[in-house]
Amino acid sequence: MVKTGSSLKKGDQTRRRIIEKSAPIFNQHGYAGTSMSELMAATGLEKGGIYRHFKSKRSLAGAAFDYAWEAVKIPRHQGIESCTSSLEKLLLLVRNFVEEPVKAIPGGCPLLNTAVDSDDGDSLLRSKVSSALAQWRAKISGLVREGQRDGELRKEVDPDSVAVLLIASLEGSVMMSRLEKSREPLRTVGKHLGEYLASLAVRTD
Amino acid sequence: MVKTGSSLKKGDQTRRRIIEKSAPIFNQHGYAGTSMSELMAATGLEKGGIYRHFKSKRSLAGAAFDYAWEAVKIPRHQGIESCTSSLEKLLLLVRNFVEEPVKAIPGGCPLLNTAVDSDDGDSLLRSKVSSALAQWRAKISGLVREGQRDGELRKEVDPDSVAVLLIASLEGSVMMSRLEKSREPLRTVGKHLGEYLASLAVRTD
Repeated sequence: MVKTGSSLKKGDQTRRRIIEKSAPIFNQHGYAGTSMSELMAATGLEKGGIYRHFKSKRSLAGAAFDYAWEAVKIPRHQGIESCTSSLEKLLLLVRNFVEEPVKAIPGGCPLLNTAVDSDDGDSLLRSKVSSALAQWRAKISGLVREGQRDGELRKEVDPDSVAVLLIASLEGSVMMSRLEKSREPLRTVGKHLGEYLASLAVRTD
Repeated sequence: MVKTGSSLKKGDQTRRRIIEKSAPIFNQHGYAGTSMSELMAATGLEKGGIYRHFKSKRSLAGAAFDYAWEAVKIPRHQGIESCTSSLEKLLLLVRNFVEEPVKAIPGGCPLLNTAVDSDDGDSLLRSKVSSALAQWRAKISGLVREGQRDGELRKEVDPDSVAVLLIASLEGSVMMSRLEKSREPLRTVGKHLGEYLASLAVRTD
């Protein structure tokens, strides 16, 4: 889980608690669908108590997205330090995404939710989710480049295309799985991506 | 475009106009993000004028989704009648999706938007978007089955998996393309899906 730490000052602790309690609400109901009264009920604070820490609902939504994104990254990267190759790391990222439902933050993937929620609107949220996507793309394409340097993955593979394919199909399958209340789309996409990643390896035969 | 027809009665014409004007607003701002005053401004009607035709904002949102979904299906299927094989039809569906930005309804794919908007909430919208997804899955898996019957696509291919892969990766790439304001993710996914579909063909060599 995300660090909490008793060393935080009281004000920082309250700020932190507001973010933690608000993140699941924004993630489930979206920015416009989240009312101040819901945020007050979840945090147990009056409106003024929330505004003491955040100058607007918008700025709280931004902090809640950052928190949610950090929280989902932890289970998605679990075990990566024990992988011995780039291909193993890529396969693990896919497997973790498919097999680990996002328990940290109810409501599904915060990147998908916030992207769809903000692509026609709010610019603070839009810029935060754009950075998160850019970071995720860089992580995956970086692993592909590492694998190419190590002679594990084929040189002609385009690292950025691999990142786009993985992210697009995983996020699309989250949308389908959540709508259908079935893990089948996630698993189908996971299986396909496993085979696809394996096909990028340098043939040793 | 979706039929309008001057043969519609005056009341039906007004109902139709309310739906047409509301659909882009719901598609861009979501259900909670769409206010009655925006709907009034877009339709040029008073609240009572809208409620004369729809018993609630919810029921208007449902009709707007149905309209938006029909509207995006037309460009996505364009040219399919001239295709002579199932594989050609599948490739065309992917190409149309990737190359034709959704002009009919601003705000991106109504299926993705409404799925993410309603997966934790509204049950009328959720059931409408679930039916749309089921219909799309059936269309694609039906084409794969047709290709298998005609000896064009390999028997061991699972038609439902093909449908999941296509829909998940196309919808995920719409999310990325809209967020990044670039068609590159859509094109990358389109290229991959073209190669993937070609790999399902019975080898004739």
